[in-house]
Amino acid sequence: MSSHEFYMDLALSNAKNLKGQTDPNPLVGSVIVNDNRIVGIGTHLKAGEPHAEIHALRMAADMSRGATIYVTLEPCSHFGRTGPCAQAIITAGIKKVVVATLDPNPLVSGNGVRMLEEAGIEVIVSVREEESRKMNEVFNKFIVDKTPFVTLKAASTLDGKIATHSLDSKWITSEEARLDVHLLRSQHMAILVGVGTVIEDDPELTARIPNGRNPLRLVLDSTLRIPLDSKLVTDGIADTWIFTSRNHTNEKRKALENLGISIYETNKDTQVDVFDVVRILGEKGISSLFIEGGGTINAAFLENGLIDKVVFYFAPKLVGGKLAPTFVEGTGIEWMKDAINLRDGEFSKIGKDFKFTGYPEKGGNTR
Amino acid sequence: MSSHEFYMDLALSNAKNLKGQTDPNPLVGSVIVNDNRIVGIGTHLKAGEPHAEIHALRMAADMSRGATIYVTLEPCSHFGRTGPCAQAIITAGIKKVVVATLDPNPLVSGNGVRMLEEAGIEVIVSVREEESRKMNEVFNKFIVDKTPFVTLKAASTLDGKIATHSLDSKWITSEEARLDVHLLRSQHMAILVGVGTVIEDDPELTARIPNGRNPLRLVLDSTLRIPLDSKLVTDGIADTWIFTSRNHTNEKRKALENLGISIYETNKDTQVDVFDVVRILGEKGISSLFIEGGGTINAAFLENGLIDKVVFYFAPKLVGGKLAPTFVEGTGIEWMKDAINLRDGEFSKIGKDFKFTGYPEKGGNTR
Repeated sequence: MSSHEFYMDLALSNAKNLKGQTDPNPLVGSVIVNDNRIVGIGTHLKAGEPHAEIHALRMAADMSRGATIYVTLEPCSHFGRTGPCAQAIITAGIKKVVVATLDPNPLVSGNGVRMLEEAGIEVIVSVREEESRKMNEVFNKFIVDKTPFVTLKAASTLDGKIATHSLDSKWITSEEARLDVHLLRSQHMAILVGVGTVIEDDPELTARIPNGRNPLRLVLDSTLRIPLDSKLVTDGIADTWIFTSRNHTNEKRKALENLGISIYETNKDTQVDVFDVVRILGEKGISSLFIEGGGTINAAFLENGLIDKVVFYFAPKLVGGKLAPTFVEGTGIEWMKDAINLRDGEFSKIGKDFKFTGYPEKGGNTR
Repeated sequence: MSSHEFYMDLALSNAKNLKGQTDPNPLVGSVIVNDNRIVGIGTHLKAGEPHAEIHALRMAADMSRGATIYVTLEPCSHFGRTGPCAQAIITAGIKKVVVATLDPNPLVSGNGVRMLEEAGIEVIVSVREEESRKMNEVFNKFIVDKTPFVTLKAASTLDGKIATHSLDSKWITSEEARLDVHLLRSQHMAILVGVGTVIEDDPELTARIPNGRNPLRLVLDSTLRIPLDSKLVTDGIADTWIFTSRNHTNEKRKALENLGISIYETNKDTQVDVFDVVRILGEKGISSLFIEGGGTINAAFLENGLIDKVVFYFAPKLVGGKLAPTFVEGTGIEWMKDAINLRDGEFSKIGKDFKFTGYPEKGGNTR
């Protein structure tokens, strides 16, 4: 490991710990090194507050002169809510800039590096690039596509069942895995379920961990069947939005709206249009969506190529049952060769269970 | 790692490489060390041939005097097809015996150690005991229960499907995973499928790897539907036995028997009795059984507590489908709390796929 990687790892480590706190901004960390001594450390904390480089430069003060700054993301070159960081770096007398990855926004990518180089500063790019891009996978998608980064979560037995044939599902996974789900909820701006889940389980869909931030709660409900006394409608813990089709009564809609629920009618007669859902969420500035649906909702998003990442928890147990529900149902893919491949798949142990993460290849959908 | 573990690991490593070759005998390795120098290495190669200790003692010859012998299994004390190894060790003048694990057969367990100690030899037991027991998990079960150690194999998508809703299943897993299956076939005495698999795929069920030993081929076929021209009936590559119920015609039975197929009628009117299957196999000296059934056969063995080990290959892909078959079907377990737990579960990577191994806890069945 070179010293460049050593200092960039420190910047990445600081940034990663802020996950979920900087939305809609990316996670960014910065370290300033002068004469082999760390003289400044900065991390972007919250949208509207200074960028990582500015915090690090303030800490370093006079020691910035002639120093090397490490930044996990290309310094900005534009006047946003804060001034351009590239200019601040130039003004502070920094001699060398080491960047993990360029700005993912094609409209500005490379501009910060150019501004620095034109001021005579040496710039090195692509140190720990993959780690930095992965850390901001949500931001990187949203900034380009303007629709949320969608994570599909499921928890099943090892034979793929999310309940027994008698629909008993409590509990499949261990306490540790369920806590991990609450952490993921806290790191997403919105969480989505189907109305069936609301009717059966009456969930709160909150992040029950210390300092957990509750996501916006979304329900797909094509005919507005949601009970007016369900927790999502009445508890006021977090906002609830319902996506429906044209197939609902104005009366139920009014009743829900009077209780403070937002209703979005999507562009289909009898079903909720999932493309409309992500489009509307994007317009509303929702950059990350966590889906905890059943097999039908999961299939609808997967088959339409709308899932960016999957997180599956597998309990090392078997329940069997030809009629027991699995976590991806719908009609399904017709030919095995057309299956949705998951790239960069990884298993890890979590409590007694196993956690899989992977990324659907977009080619594998049935459209 | 102590030197005891170092030498025992060498003995284990030699023994493991003989997997499948020593049936119905266990895998056993031995190393003799004199004055910090390895002077003998022995491994049991084949039933009826000398035990590991005898090979090692022959190699060491005079250097056995005053030496330490490492054996992965307690030396035998009885006159079987070969003389008692404990006596040979005493006669050779060995000073110390290090044993990984006692004989699993309760009728003789501890007898070898006692014979050695009574001759004034120091005996150390339980060095690398777990590794040695796991290496001989098949033998250890068979010697006690007199029924085969049953391994259930399945290959599915990550969402538990063994085919798409249109029953297309070629191919789920990668070449590497399929080669691993052929290796496992080669290490088992018998392989079992349902007649449905025979009718649909007309498989050979052979071990297509270099030096692969073809297992005995078993078919569960309650009404003797198996086609007379299927490969299992006609190819003569390995023996084929069919287990049926009372619900079959004598005519078809005769036709199959005339083609050299053995027919076993189990103790049920319309279905094959799986308890009878393992009992009959045990009586015939079949110590290891590899099940490559579909969801129904897998469920029948699992729900009846007849599976000792599972090996599941998961391809990192999704096909979905409410009607797509999964690898454990049947009626299934009714309550999640009664699920069949898999202990000592482990995932490893194999090619592009993931391999899970685990051991069903016997308490989790529906009997």
